[in-house]
Amino acid sequence: MKKITVWGFSWVPPVAQGLVRDLRVRWALEEAGLAYESRCIDTGERNSGDYRHKHPFGMVPVLESADGAMIESGAIVHAIAEQCEALMPADRRAETLGWMFTALNTVEPPLWNLFVMDVLHGEEAWVPLRRPAVVDEVNHRLAALSECLADRDYLLGRFTAADILMTTVLRFIRHTNLLARFPSLVAYVERCEARPAFDAALRNQLDGYARNEPVAA
Amino acid sequence: MKKITVWGFSWVPPVAQGLVRDLRVRWALEEAGLAYESRCIDTGERNSGDYRHKHPFGMVPVLESADGAMIESGAIVHAIAEQCEALMPADRRAETLGWMFTALNTVEPPLWNLFVMDVLHGEEAWVPLRRPAVVDEVNHRLAALSECLADRDYLLGRFTAADILMTTVLRFIRHTNLLARFPSLVAYVERCEARPAFDAALRNQLDGYARNEPVAA
Repeated sequence: MKKITVWGFSWVPPVAQGLVRDLRVRWALEEAGLAYESRCIDTGERNSGDYRHKHPFGMVPVLESADGAMIESGAIVHAIAEQCEALMPADRRAETLGWMFTALNTVEPPLWNLFVMDVLHGEEAWVPLRRPAVVDEVNHRLAALSECLADRDYLLGRFTAADILMTTVLRFIRHTNLLARFPSLVAYVERCEARPAFDAALRNQLDGYARNEPVAA
Repeated sequence: MKKITVWGFSWVPPVAQGLVRDLRVRWALEEAGLAYESRCIDTGERNSGDYRHKHPFGMVPVLESADGAMIESGAIVHAIAEQCEALMPADRRAETLGWMFTALNTVEPPLWNLFVMDVLHGEEAWVPLRRPAVVDEVNHRLAALSECLADRDYLLGRFTAADILMTTVLRFIRHTNLLARFPSLVAYVERCEARPAFDAALRNQLDGYARNEPVAA
């Protein structure tokens, strides 16, 4: 990959800042030492014909490079990791991939559903009726994850692309105190977030939002 | 991979038969021409210590082979596809992976949520309040997918592992008539399901359930 462009949203409300999935791609690029430039679309433009041409589902991120355009944060992080021993050790590829899919397909769904109900639909009548079962599901996933992690610093012992996905997934419930029951997971997220590459990625994302902050009416 | 074992559930109710995610793995193995044997656990045993040792989240599938054990249907199908040109053409790898992640992470979440609310929680008071917005979300995803597929027979034109994942995802809403608005998607699912490998995989899964059918009380 030579010139790399990452597409995100120009601005999202504070509750979503630091959670939009282009963060994963930025973080992976920072860890891999690959320079990139940021481009953004307005959330209102996500369904425009022009942008749909880039992303048929009107979502972010999109990554553009000399190799063409890619969608899906999981696929993009996977592609970056394959070129970067620091993100996917050649002798532990299957294990890295197993944890990447676990983050996206086993841990993310209930955590994302909790984020959506609390943050995007918090005032709706169905939320208090549905919420307890989703919290249970989240707790079960967190308990299993905490057991798996045991006393390791990272999912595979050393940092990999799987930690990028898992950390960004665990951040979806930052508006709750559910993680606090699992001190090793709290420490894990803090450890991952303390990496300079995470910090650079997050600052890049937040700086963009700050530049595009809507003027108060 | 020499001897391959696929773990699924010994029995699930008819509403879930043909939807459990070991079907994806069976289908990929059948397409790849790899022999496997089936093992199963009772859904009540999924959280037992023994089984948790195989799958820390108490889920299926697990694939065991000489290379070790793997979890996550996406990761397993990915691993099978990497050894099989028929499932992931070497010159279109990024495209195949992009569609695999799209199936699991963009199309599956709303369709799975609709399955869960209708089939597992159909009688609960929150469902009628929440359902319309989820149906909208499903319709948006299906519309975008239908546009992407256009007049192609398969997501990449030719059959790949991405079609295995997408077909099994679209089957999650078989209890509704939502797909009918998109005739090209109906034809796509029928085309994929007409493959002998799908038929063999489905029969293997259903035969197991038939053998373990609980005796009526």
